[in-house]
Amino acid sequence: MTWTRRTFLGRVAAAAGYRAMYTAMQALGLLATTSEASPLPDLPPNFGAGKKVIILGGGIAGLVSAYELRKAGFTCTILEARERPGGRNWSVRNGCKVEFTDGAVQTCDWEEGHYLNVGPARLPSIHRVMIEYCEDLGVPLEVEINTSRSTLMQADTLNGGKPVEQRQVVNDTRGYISELLAKSIDQHGLDKLLDKEDTQRMLDFLQTYGDLTNDYSYKGSQRSGFVVSPGAGPDEEKWHQPLSLHELLVSDFSTGELYEEQIDWQATMFQPIGGMDRIPYAFAKSLGDIVQYRCVVKKVGKSSSGVKVEYANAGSSQEIEADYCICTLPLTILRTLDIDCALEKKQAFKGMKLASLYKIGWEAPRFWEKQYNIYGGISFPKQTVDLVWYPSNGLFTKTGIILSGFNFEQKDFADGSPTAFGALSTQGKLDASRAAVEVLHPGHGRSLTKPIYVSWQKIPYSLGCLAMNMMPDTKPAYNELNKPDGRIYFAGDYLSHIVGWQEGAALSAHRAIHGIAEQMRSS
Amino acid sequence: MTWTRRTFLGRVAAAAGYRAMYTAMQALGLLATTSEASPLPDLPPNFGAGKKVIILGGGIAGLVSAYELRKAGFTCTILEARERPGGRNWSVRNGCKVEFTDGAVQTCDWEEGHYLNVGPARLPSIHRVMIEYCEDLGVPLEVEINTSRSTLMQADTLNGGKPVEQRQVVNDTRGYISELLAKSIDQHGLDKLLDKEDTQRMLDFLQTYGDLTNDYSYKGSQRSGFVVSPGAGPDEEKWHQPLSLHELLVSDFSTGELYEEQIDWQATMFQPIGGMDRIPYAFAKSLGDIVQYRCVVKKVGKSSSGVKVEYANAGSSQEIEADYCICTLPLTILRTLDIDCALEKKQAFKGMKLASLYKIGWEAPRFWEKQYNIYGGISFPKQTVDLVWYPSNGLFTKTGIILSGFNFEQKDFADGSPTAFGALSTQGKLDASRAAVEVLHPGHGRSLTKPIYVSWQKIPYSLGCLAMNMMPDTKPAYNELNKPDGRIYFAGDYLSHIVGWQEGAALSAHRAIHGIAEQMRSS
Repeated sequence: MTWTRRTFLGRVAAAAGYRAMYTAMQALGLLATTSEASPLPDLPPNFGAGKKVIILGGGIAGLVSAYELRKAGFTCTILEARERPGGRNWSVRNGCKVEFTDGAVQTCDWEEGHYLNVGPARLPSIHRVMIEYCEDLGVPLEVEINTSRSTLMQADTLNGGKPVEQRQVVNDTRGYISELLAKSIDQHGLDKLLDKEDTQRMLDFLQTYGDLTNDYSYKGSQRSGFVVSPGAGPDEEKWHQPLSLHELLVSDFSTGELYEEQIDWQATMFQPIGGMDRIPYAFAKSLGDIVQYRCVVKKVGKSSSGVKVEYANAGSSQEIEADYCICTLPLTILRTLDIDCALEKKQAFKGMKLASLYKIGWEAPRFWEKQYNIYGGISFPKQTVDLVWYPSNGLFTKTGIILSGFNFEQKDFADGSPTAFGALSTQGKLDASRAAVEVLHPGHGRSLTKPIYVSWQKIPYSLGCLAMNMMPDTKPAYNELNKPDGRIYFAGDYLSHIVGWQEGAALSAHRAIHGIAEQMRSS
Repeated sequence: MTWTRRTFLGRVAAAAGYRAMYTAMQALGLLATTSEASPLPDLPPNFGAGKKVIILGGGIAGLVSAYELRKAGFTCTILEARERPGGRNWSVRNGCKVEFTDGAVQTCDWEEGHYLNVGPARLPSIHRVMIEYCEDLGVPLEVEINTSRSTLMQADTLNGGKPVEQRQVVNDTRGYISELLAKSIDQHGLDKLLDKEDTQRMLDFLQTYGDLTNDYSYKGSQRSGFVVSPGAGPDEEKWHQPLSLHELLVSDFSTGELYEEQIDWQATMFQPIGGMDRIPYAFAKSLGDIVQYRCVVKKVGKSSSGVKVEYANAGSSQEIEADYCICTLPLTILRTLDIDCALEKKQAFKGMKLASLYKIGWEAPRFWEKQYNIYGGISFPKQTVDLVWYPSNGLFTKTGIILSGFNFEQKDFADGSPTAFGALSTQGKLDASRAAVEVLHPGHGRSLTKPIYVSWQKIPYSLGCLAMNMMPDTKPAYNELNKPDGRIYFAGDYLSHIVGWQEGAALSAHRAIHGIAEQMRSS
């Protein structure tokens, strides 16, 4: 446990009135340890008195920076190019314009209350910092249903191409794996791997784990659901026949099956009621005119007292000076910006690609609820569009926004060439999106209306989605930009190990504030 | 697919305006098939005109009976012994008295808004009939979080007795099983079970399934969570060391690990906002004075025109006659009731034991949320009290009701002798409940206040919880009571294959109505 972590826990504990308890529990090693370690320093409220910080970009990193710096007495200004706060935290809703850099414009005319979180759409409960900001700001949360066993999985190589329920894939797979291991033990023993007693314990466990028969065969399970449901009276239920193991293996559902176990996608997950953008709007409301919209940064320079930024505001050129700068602009913007910094930094701006993620949402009657028992969760069709995500909001109402398509448009983990989806025309992409719903829910593809397609590479002021900072060759850039250039600090999710998440952006902002505080103390 | 199932689907489809779509989809076999098969007949609104039905018991079976019979023109009366509707669907809250048959009385004085669903506490989304009643009656639902990976598992034989997160148990177990199967394949092949190509596919799959290293070893996984969380800047996260396979096997967490996969406990699950009793209260509001409270049935006889029931109401003896009777009283009551029916029926009343389930709830500050990232879900300590269930309602508020203890007090699946818990005094039971929380959340056992302990065997007019109709020797009783005695029909979850669930009670009521309609048509 580093000192920063200890500081953080202490701060939380003090705020909650639990300091004594926390200290005792820490000493005992009894505290759950999944809380994020925030490097935010505990600064007195006048620490930054008389000091100005200019923050470039009003996404989560920028908003958190201003929110925390203000508490410590700094005078802050956020320059935001758009007319709204949030950056990639954007909920497209009625009246929104989606403008691409190629000139294409979509205008959203969904029903009031409908939205699509085209950037972040989930708040894992382990992302403590963001959860606590929601509590601080009074942003009410509801459960985001990331997993539902009634969602569907489909591959042309399984079940004649007809979709099956996720509960079948998950439980039949577990059944077969348990059977194979049990039979393997039966035939050869596991004497080199487990002693005799543990081998017997394993066999006993596998029987429950896989729902095996007495002779360790998998013959299907009630966990995989019904062809004929149980009811009243004498009639017996009828389970699904187990899927074919061969077909399951050929189809390889590992992505969909293990999706729910990725650490940031594990239950319990939340979403703000009304859309993810309720978070940036709540920050912005709290910050008031600290956030300046339609301010496009043109030049970042240094002055005798610190930093000087030139920007365009509604056509006119403006200038602002400050003691420090926290720059949260995306690397795609920084690459071409006129910025007075070291060559190493400029090289680092080019050191990470930005992911080519897209999302497509449609307005539709909620056929998936009453007719398929699907309330939230994600279906996985093995098609050009391979992910269909059902809304967790507005359950039991008439219509909703269904997402069909959330993936890369280019092979960002490989050579960057277009994916099958990315190679299509816009109309082809919408058709592929509709086709994915049709293969899962035959007859319903045509009930999708009013598509909204957001391709992050084409969104002005973003020009890409999350930075691919998990690629090994990005490490030099990561380390370089995690160091300031004089009084210019960089922040954003791309400078954290939780890239693509608001939590990473917030923690990165905390780290920048920590750096500024250290610099002030040592100067 | 039986005619009743087809009728049901047709009825739903017609109501939703989807008949054509349904018919087409049924023909294609494309409909999801997990909807419950309801035998409710589609009766014209004057079908029951001039006919009276007396319903004994105002639990879900009774309320559903009256609700549906009224639609078909019947005149109904429900005789309910208690002062409230719902039967075992009971949400204990401020002001409630919990009276045991042995004279013990508890009075609940929790904060306004707090409740414990001491009977049913979950509505699985696959329980279509109950979900649709909630929609009909305007009972708003919220997500019931049945699974959260941040909940805890504990055994004295694991990790030195210190609790671990569910994500560790679930993902480490999957990792080890994948490793063992992969190594088993490596050493001996699975040639008798899988061909060469599928064997390679299985190895590839296991690598993802178990998050194995390249040599198919399990060395821990990010899925199992962190000792040091990922953050901003250069510091790297640190994963939990994998738990010991030996300790996992000795501890045997199969119950807790597979809990979420039991068909009626799979996500997505719901609960009514404000308590499960919102359902019976909504039925009762709709039914008005059809529901007669404080009416204790004393005698069920036959008359020339049908059925005659004698009952006590506020001390005075009353009598009511009707053409038909639907009796939803529990078997424990029927065994001693003066009822004019065949000897086979009276024997059948004794043909099922009622389960000795209990629940204990406490009011407490929500230490499990901020300090443990636990929002809903269930922890499994291997202690005398082995289940701790966190509330899904009121998340992020200051206090809540935590359930510690939900199990059998007797070995109902065996000889009926007391369990370790059941053998304790009441104070011993409360101590065991508190101790289970203390072992999971050290230091917090003492923050539990105002316990409420409900032992269903001791609750008047119930005298037990669900009937153990899954035991093989209960089949004769089940079949016997699923047939009417003249004009007396029996209904309740115990006459369904979804025993212990409101869905079973509702379907059983539908079946009784079906029987009455058939009898009327054939007479």
